[in-house]
Amino acid sequence: MNDGREPTEPATESATEPAADDRDEVPDDYGTLYVVGIGPGLPDHMTKRAKELISTSDCVVASNLYQEFLRDDGTLPPEGSDDGPEVVRSSMGKQVELTREAFERVRDGEDVVHVSGGDPNVYGKSDLVFTMAKGDEATDVPIEIVPGVTAALGGAAMMGAPLSNDFCTVSLSDKWRGWDEIEEKLRAAAISGFVIVLYNCWRNYERAIDVVREERADDVPVGIFNDAGRGEAGRNLDDETFSVTTLGDAKAHDDDVGGMGTSILIGTHETEPWSNDYQTYLVTPRGGRDVDDF
Amino acid sequence: MNDGREPTEPATESATEPAADDRDEVPDDYGTLYVVGIGPGLPDHMTKRAKELISTSDCVVASNLYQEFLRDDGTLPPEGSDDGPEVVRSSMGKQVELTREAFERVRDGEDVVHVSGGDPNVYGKSDLVFTMAKGDEATDVPIEIVPGVTAALGGAAMMGAPLSNDFCTVSLSDKWRGWDEIEEKLRAAAISGFVIVLYNCWRNYERAIDVVREERADDVPVGIFNDAGRGEAGRNLDDETFSVTTLGDAKAHDDDVGGMGTSILIGTHETEPWSNDYQTYLVTPRGGRDVDDF
Repeated sequence: MNDGREPTEPATESATEPAADDRDEVPDDYGTLYVVGIGPGLPDHMTKRAKELISTSDCVVASNLYQEFLRDDGTLPPEGSDDGPEVVRSSMGKQVELTREAFERVRDGEDVVHVSGGDPNVYGKSDLVFTMAKGDEATDVPIEIVPGVTAALGGAAMMGAPLSNDFCTVSLSDKWRGWDEIEEKLRAAAISGFVIVLYNCWRNYERAIDVVREERADDVPVGIFNDAGRGEAGRNLDDETFSVTTLGDAKAHDDDVGGMGTSILIGTHETEPWSNDYQTYLVTPRGGRDVDDF
Repeated sequence: MNDGREPTEPATESATEPAADDRDEVPDDYGTLYVVGIGPGLPDHMTKRAKELISTSDCVVASNLYQEFLRDDGTLPPEGSDDGPEVVRSSMGKQVELTREAFERVRDGEDVVHVSGGDPNVYGKSDLVFTMAKGDEATDVPIEIVPGVTAALGGAAMMGAPLSNDFCTVSLSDKWRGWDEIEEKLRAAAISGFVIVLYNCWRNYERAIDVVREERADDVPVGIFNDAGRGEAGRNLDDETFSVTTLGDAKAHDDDVGGMGTSILIGTHETEPWSNDYQTYLVTPRGGRDVDDF
């Protein structure tokens, strides 16, 4: 077995134990670059490890919104405080510059945290950091990705159990690829019965719904959710909302498809709404199983 | 907009505001049934909300393994202690009975937590709870799902950024459905370019690899991971392991495909291994973007 922590090409042979003792050690005077997911909304859904790393690092790179969440939660001290990590404001246009600066800080001994909403892998910052490290040949910089709850999971939890069978995520952003690729994925997922969660759907969402409608029945349930995890789930509507509709009617919900915090979950033929005295849930039982199957 | 928290059928009309004030209130003398994801491994990757609910509830239903994790972590007091929640041992054959008991406890005023590994929606316990509630017409029982980091995200983080483009999850368990459905999903996902994460792959994994190989090149990178999140990510190999191989060679890794904790991530033509001085990562840049795209 190649344990993945060895700097080798993909293994072509199987062996029994990871060769842990052979791997290089991180230099004592280096820090680590952590890319940390803080979950889909408020830090309530941040992991213990994420919170610890943010509060104990030397430098935190985060957007204004995430800084605010982390200050409200006590993970970061109040603005202007002399305690806690140095906080650097992240912005969309400065990612390359900030990542390069992070490499230098790590070499100078700092632990640096790049804060990512949701999970760093799911349309987050992790590919940027590795692409930069590769481009800059920054093989000396230790990098660790810290997972978080992605919006698909946070939104699904609000709605009950809509994701309890095979699912996929599709980003509707066509900034880095053609629409043809997005459409092919949507079509394949719709035909073969995946629950589909659309990300970045403030643009192209009507186009995406049209593609899925060609392959999936109009009466399958659809959930549109905003700001998953930013209100107390299931109890109030402070800032998170969701609406339940159907594939046939989804395009009539323009008002709900608000901004960067909107995702849309498209159920399958097995997904059913179920209401108790408090709310309507969506449930996708695995293999359509019922109570006798458990 | 139908806010989903109203007990109605799926909306066919769009409205502007959720009708929050109209919804029924939870009776004062009732508790809540929480289905709580604790993440992919040790409670390090458990969210703050999950930890709070487990430690403050009246009753926790959890497997022996999860009880052990939660005691080691201090979320639950030591075994035999008079403090903390009543702890009920969960086991595979008793799910229906335990869920029915949980409904009764909630009606008696208890907050009950069902502990789920990973995320409750992703092949977890959430569909069971709703299916039971529907079957028993338990519309009076308040239910809340608390999301967690699922194994796909925990495993991807160990390996770097292999999931930084559209991905899907497929369970290889054919307990509740035919292999034909699983095969159709694998084939569709392979053709259309999803990163694929296989769950429950202690069985049928070789069969699944064969299907994907018919549609995807043998040289795409594959990561096999075990017990994601159960060692200190990226730093040691206490109990979590991963190996990097290729689709063509994946079937030679029988020794790595150990048990219930094994998942397999199959990359796309854009996924590439990259090594620094400490380990080999897998990176799937979105749209194959490079540094100049950011």
